[in-house]
Amino acid sequence: RQRFFDEAAERIDRPGIATGMAWTSVGGEIMFIEAATMPGKEERLILTGQLGDVMKESAIAALSYVRSNSTALGLPKNVFEGQNVHIHVPAGAIPKDGPSAGVTMVTVLVSLASGRKVRSDLAMTGEITLRGKVMPIGGVKEKVLAAYRSGIRSVILPAKNEAEFMEDIPNELREQMHFTFVSDIRQVLDIALVPEGEHDEKIAANGDGRHRKRKGEKAVAKA
Amino acid sequence: RQRFFDEAAERIDRPGIATGMAWTSVGGEIMFIEAATMPGKEERLILTGQLGDVMKESAIAALSYVRSNSTALGLPKNVFEGQNVHIHVPAGAIPKDGPSAGVTMVTVLVSLASGRKVRSDLAMTGEITLRGKVMPIGGVKEKVLAAYRSGIRSVILPAKNEAEFMEDIPNELREQMHFTFVSDIRQVLDIALVPEGEHDEKIAANGDGRHRKRKGEKAVAKA
Amino acid sequence: RQRFFDEAAERIDRPGIATGMAWTSVGGEIMFIEAATMPGKEERLILTGQLGDVMKESAIAALSYVRSNSTALGLPKNVFEGQNVHIHVPAGAIPKDGPSAGVTMVTVLVSLASGRKVRSDLAMTGEITLRGKVMPIGGVKEKVLAAYRSGIRSVILPAKNEAEFMEDIPNELREQMHFTFVSDIRQVLDIALVPEGEHDEKIAANGDGRHRKRKGEKAVAKA
Amino acid sequence: RQRFFDEAAERIDRPGIATGMAWTSVGGEIMFIEAATMPGKEERLILTGQLGDVMKESAIAALSYVRSNSTALGLPKNVFEGQNVHIHVPAGAIPKDGPSAGVTMVTVLVSLASGRKVRSDLAMTGEITLRGKVMPIGGVKEKVLAAYRSGIRSVILPAKNEAEFMEDIPNELREQMHFTFVSDIRQVLDIALVPEGEHDEKIAANGDGRHRKRKGEKAVAKA
Amino acid sequence: RQRFFDEAAERIDRPGIATGMAWTSVGGEIMFIEAATMPGKEERLILTGQLGDVMKESAIAALSYVRSNSTALGLPKNVFEGQNVHIHVPAGAIPKDGPSAGVTMVTVLVSLASGRKVRSDLAMTGEITLRGKVMPIGGVKEKVLAAYRSGIRSVILPAKNEAEFMEDIPNELREQMHFTFVSDIRQVLDIALVPEGEHDEKIAANGDGRHRKRKGEKAVAKA
Amino acid sequence: RQRFFDEAAERIDRPGIATGMAWTSVGGEIMFIEAATMPGKEERLILTGQLGDVMKESAIAALSYVRSNSTALGLPKNVFEGQNVHIHVPAGAIPKDGPSAGVTMVTVLVSLASGRKVRSDLAMTGEITLRGKVMPIGGVKEKVLAAYRSGIRSVILPAKNEAEFMEDIPNELREQMHFTFVSDIRQVLDIALVPEGEHDEKIAANGDGRHRKRKGEKAVAKA
Ligand SMILES: [Ca+2]
Ligand SMILES: [Ca+2]
Ligand SMILES: [Ca+2]
Ligand SMILES: [Ca+2]
Ligand SMILES: [Ca+2]
Ligand SMILES: [Ca+2]
Ligand SMILES: [Ca+2]
Ligand SMILES: [Ca+2]
Ligand SMILES: [Ca+2]
Ligand SMILES: [Ca+2]
Ligand SMILES: [Ca+2]
Ligand SMILES: [Ca+2]
Repeated sequence: RQRFFDEAAERIDRPGIATGMAWTSVGGEIMFIEAATMPGKEERLILTGQLGDVMKESAIAALSYVRSNSTALGLPKNVFEGQNVHIHVPAGAIPKDGPSAGVTMVTVLVSLASGRKVRSDLAMTGEITLRGKVMPIGGVKEKVLAAYRSGIRSVILPAKNEAEFMEDIPNELREQMHFTFVSDIRQVLDIALVPEGEHDEKIAANGDGRHRKRKGEKAVAKA
Repeated sequence: RQRFFDEAAERIDRPGIATGMAWTSVGGEIMFIEAATMPGKEERLILTGQLGDVMKESAIAALSYVRSNSTALGLPKNVFEGQNVHIHVPAGAIPKDGPSAGVTMVTVLVSLASGRKVRSDLAMTGEITLRGKVMPIGGVKEKVLAAYRSGIRSVILPAKNEAEFMEDIPNELREQMHFTFVSDIRQVLDIALVPEGEHDEKIAANGDGRHRKRKGEKAVAKA
Repeated sequence: RQRFFDEAAERIDRPGIATGMAWTSVGGEIMFIEAATMPGKEERLILTGQLGDVMKESAIAALSYVRSNSTALGLPKNVFEGQNVHIHVPAGAIPKDGPSAGVTMVTVLVSLASGRKVRSDLAMTGEITLRGKVMPIGGVKEKVLAAYRSGIRSVILPAKNEAEFMEDIPNELREQMHFTFVSDIRQVLDIALVPEGEHDEKIAANGDGRHRKRKGEKAVAKA
Repeated sequence: RQRFFDEAAERIDRPGIATGMAWTSVGGEIMFIEAATMPGKEERLILTGQLGDVMKESAIAALSYVRSNSTALGLPKNVFEGQNVHIHVPAGAIPKDGPSAGVTMVTVLVSLASGRKVRSDLAMTGEITLRGKVMPIGGVKEKVLAAYRSGIRSVILPAKNEAEFMEDIPNELREQMHFTFVSDIRQVLDIALVPEGEHDEKIAANGDGRHRKRKGEKAVAKA
Repeated sequence: RQRFFDEAAERIDRPGIATGMAWTSVGGEIMFIEAATMPGKEERLILTGQLGDVMKESAIAALSYVRSNSTALGLPKNVFEGQNVHIHVPAGAIPKDGPSAGVTMVTVLVSLASGRKVRSDLAMTGEITLRGKVMPIGGVKEKVLAAYRSGIRSVILPAKNEAEFMEDIPNELREQMHFTFVSDIRQVLDIALVPEGEHDEKIAANGDGRHRKRKGEKAVAKA
Repeated sequence: RQRFFDEAAERIDRPGIATGMAWTSVGGEIMFIEAATMPGKEERLILTGQLGDVMKESAIAALSYVRSNSTALGLPKNVFEGQNVHIHVPAGAIPKDGPSAGVTMVTVLVSLASGRKVRSDLAMTGEITLRGKVMPIGGVKEKVLAAYRSGIRSVILPAKNEAEFMEDIPNELREQMHFTFVSDIRQVLDIALVPEGEHDEKIAANGDGRHRKRKGEKAVAKA
C-alpha cells in the first residue's frame, strides 16, 4: 500500500502530472498522466503511450476545453500559444483506450499552465465534455479496486456514476476510502490542484474514510 | 421525463451547445452537440466523439455554410478567422454517424459565433446542404421516440419528412409533443436561438401540443 | 413532374448550384451540386457528399480548369485566391462516383465566381478535361431516364455520346425532351448560366421538344 | 483514321497537351496528357486521372527534370515558382499505370512553360530519368498498334527499344508509319515542340514512311 | 570481446551516439543509437531504422523531455529550435520496437546538444517518461546477456528492474560485469556523458566488477 | 562488357549520378542513382523509383548525413537550404529495397552539392549510418556478380563484408576485378568523386586487377 504513495509522491513532484484511471487490455488501471510543453509554431498536440482512438480524442477535447475556457480557469487568454503540448501516458508499450482519462488530462493541463501541482494522494476518472461537464464512465468497480490495490484512498468519480457506485462497491471499501462525486471539471480542479506556493499535503486517507473536506467535495453517503 | 430537462437546462447553459438527434450503433438517439473555438492559425476544424465519415462531412458542410453565409446570418464577415473550431459529440466512446446532425451543427456554430444560447427544451434533426436547405433524414420515428423517452416535447424536423411523419408517428405522440417542420436552416435558427440578452425560456411543451408560436413555425396538422 | 421544378427553382436560387447527373449505388441519378467559398489561406478544395476517388478527381480537375482559364472565362485572374472552395453533393450519406459530374462542377464554380445563376430547368452531364473538352460518359440512357422521371425536359450531353444516344433513347423521350450536345465546356456555360442581372427564365420544355434556341445549342436530329 | 487527327488537332490546340502512350487495364493505349498551372503558394503537383503509383512517380520525376534543368531548357530559372502544376490524363475513370508516359509529361510541361504547342500528329512513349535520359518501355508492339489504329503515323520511341522493335513490328507497319528513336528528352523536345509563333504543321505521315526530317530525328533503318 | 570495444570506441567518437539495448525480431539486442541535427523550419523529428510504433513514441517522448527540460539540463532554453532532429538506429533493415531505448535516446540528444560525448564502454536500457523517470523494461536477462556477449561490462538498468535482476542474472555474470540501477534520467546523464573537453576514458570493466565509482552510481549488492 | 561502360560514361556525365548496387525483386542488381535539386520552401526530400520502406529510410539518412556534416564535407553550411532534393532510382517500375544503396546516395548528394562528378567506372554498395560509417550489406556475391556481368571492374564494398567476401568470391573474379573495402563514407568520397575541374578518367580495370591507387584505397589481399 505504501508503495504507491512513495511512487506517486516521488513522481507527482511538479506541475503537469496526475494519477488517472483508464482502460488497458487488462481492465481498469490506475496510471500516471503527464503533460509537457515546448516551443512549437504549429501548436501541435503530441500524444504518446499507445493511446487508442477514443483516448486520443479525449486528450484533444481536454486541450480544447482548457484553451477555450482559459480566462475562466484563471489562465492566460492565449494559453499554450506558440507551444507544442505533449501528453504521455506511461507505460509506453501498453495499449490504453476509453474516454475516462478526460478529467485527468484537463487536470494535468491546467496544472502545467498554472504551475500548481496536483495532489499526489488521489486518483480521478471521468469523461470530459467540451464544456467541462464530467460524464459517467464504465468499469467503476474495477477502477476503484485497482486504486485500492495501489494504496490509493481518495478517488474522484463522476456524479453520474454515483447510483451504480452505491450498488457495486462493497461497504468495506467505501469505509476505507474517500470518494468525491463531481459533475463539472471545476470541482475536480478545486479538489485536485494544490494552491500555488503550497506544498502537496500528501494526506493519506485513513481507514474510516474521514478526510479534511475541501470546497466542492461532497461526502459519500454511507448506505 | 424531468431528468432530461434538468440535464439539458444544466448543460445548455451557454452558447455553443444544443440537442441533436442522430444515429449511433443502437439506433436513433438524442445527443448534445458542442462547439468551442480557440486561437489557431491553421483554422482547423477539430471533430471528436467517434464520428463516422458521413457525420464528419456533415460538420464540414455545416462550418462552410456558416462561413460562406456569415454576413447574411448577422455574423462578422470573417467569422472564425484565426480560430480552430472544435465540434464534439459526447459520449466520446460511442460511434455515431449519418447526416442528420447537420442542422444542429449549424445551430451550435451560429450560437457560438453570435453569443446567443440555444433553447434547451427542444431537439432538432435534419441534413444540411451547403446552401442551408434542410434535407430529409432517416429514422424519423426512432428519433422522435428517443426524444419522447428523454422527456423532450419540442422537436424540429425536415419538412420533407412530414409525409412520412404523418404515416409513422402515432396520434398520442403527436398530441403530446410539438413538431416544427422546416426546409431552411434560417427557420431553425429563428426558432432555436434565444434572442441576445434574453434568458432561455425553458418552456416545457404541454400535453396538448399547444405552444407559443414563433415566427417561422408551422403547426402540425393533426390527422 | 412539377415536383422537381419546384425544388430546382427553390434550390437553384443563387449562384453556385446546378443540377448534375452522375452515378450512385443505384445507377444514374440527377443531383444538385453546390459550391461555396470562404476565406482560407491554404486555398483548400473541400469535397463532401461521400464522393468516390474518380468524382473527387473530377472536382479537382474542374477547379484547375477554372483557375487556369480564369481570364478567358471572364473571371478575375486570381479567382478563388485566398479562398477555400467547397463542393458538396447532397444527399450526404449516399456514395457517388464517376467522372460525369465534371461539367456541372465547372458550371457551379463559374457560376459562383461570376455571380451568375445557373438555369434551374436543365440538367447536364459530361466528363471534363483540364482544357475544357467535354468527354463522353457512361449510362446515357439511365441518366436521361432519371432526368425525365424528375420532370426535367432540358438536358446537356457530351457530343461524343450522340451516336449512342441515337441508338438508346426511345423516340417518345426524344420528342418530349430537349437535348443539347456539346464538346466544350464553353458551350455549356453559354447555355446554362443566366446572364448577369437577368432572372432565371425557368422555361419548361414543352412536349414537342421545341425550345428557344440559344447560341451554341444544336437541336437533336429526330431519327 | 481521320478520326484521331480531327480529335488531336482539335484538342492539341494550345500549349500543355500532347499525345502519349501508356498502360491501362486493357493494354497499351494512346492517351492525351494535359498540364495546367495556377497560382499556388505550396507549389503542389496535382495528379488526376486514376494514375497508379508508378505513373505518379513518373510525373514527379518529369516535373523535377524540368525544374532542375530549367535554364538549359530555355525556361525561366524558377519555372513554375509560386504555381501549382496539374497533370491530368483523361479518361478520368480508367486506371492507368507504368513509367512510359514520362517523356510525354516532360513534353507537356516544357510546352506549357515555353508557350510552344506540341505537334498534334505524333505520339510518344518512354520512361524518363531525372537526368533526361529516355529509358526503354514495355509493350512496344501493343503501343505502336494502338497508335496505328488511332490513325497516328508518327511515333517517338526509346532508342533502347529499337532492337525489340525490329523484331516485333511487322514490315507493313514500318512502311506506313514513321518512327524516331531517341535516347535523350532533348531530342523529343526538338521534334515535338512547334517553334514559337509557328503553327502546328499537322503533316500526316505518308504511306512510304518518308517525312520531312527535323533536327535530331533518325530514320528507321528498314530491315 | 575486444571486438565491441573496438567498434564502440570507433563509432562513439563524437557527441550524439550511444549504445542502447532494445528489442528486435530476434530478442534483446545491443544497438547504437545515433542523433543528428540540421536546419529545418518545421522542426521535424525524423526517425529511421525500421522503428515500430512504440519505439517511435519513445523517441518522441525523449525529445519532448529534453526540449521541455532544457534549462534544467544545462542546455539552451530553445534547444533544437529551427532544427530538424534525426534519430537513426542501425542496422536499417532490422525491425526494432519497444520502449526500452528511451533513456539512450535522451542521452544521445543531450550529448548532441551539449557537445559532450557518451562513454563508449557502457550500454543502457530503460523506458523514459515525460518527466525523466526511468521505468522498468522487459527482457532484462536477454539484454544483459546480449551486452555480455558483445564484450560490454558496464550496464545501466532501471532501478525498478533490480528485484527481477537479482533473481534472473547468474552470479558469474554479476561478478564479471558492473551494473548501475537508476530511477531518473539525470542519473544516467551523470554517468554516461563524458565531461566537456574530457576524453572518453574507455575503462573496461574488470572481471571482479570493481570500477571507478562516479557520482550517482550505486554498486550492485552481490547476492 | 563494353556496353555498361558506354552507358555509364554517357549517363554519368554530370554531377549527381552514380552507379549503386541494391536489391530488386530479382536479386542483387546494379542501378544508377540520380539526384537533382530545385527551389522548394518546404525543403522536401522527394523519392521515386518504387523504393521500399528500408530504401527510403536509407535516402533520408543519407541526406541527414550530408546536411549535418556539410562543413566537414567541404560543402556550404546550409547545403540544400531552400531546395527540394529529389533522389530517383530508375527503372521506375521495378520495386527496389534494402539499405545497401546508402553509400551511393550520400555520394550522389555530395557530388551534386560539390559539382564534382562521380567516376563512371565503378559501382559501390554499403549501408550508411547517420555518422557516415559504412555498414555491411547482404548479397555481396550476387551484387559483385551483377557488377561483373555489367562489365564493371571496380567495386567499393564495406570493410565489414571483407571476410565474407574472401569466402564467397571465386579467385578468377578477384583477379579480374578491383575491390576497395571501406568503413567510412569519407573513403568512398575520396575514391569516387572526380576532383573539381578534372575529367572523369574512365580507367577500365584491367584483367590482372592492377589499378592506379588513389588515396584511401586498400588493395584486396589475394587469398
Ligand atoms: Ca476507432
Ligand atoms: Ca474528498
Ligand atoms: Ca465512408
Ligand atoms: Ca414549435
Ligand atoms: Ca480508386
Ligand atoms: Ca437546347
Ligand atoms: Ca506501388
Ligand atoms: Ca521523324
Ligand atoms: Ca501499434
Ligand atoms: Ca558503474
Ligand atoms: Ca516496412
Ligand atoms: Ca581501388
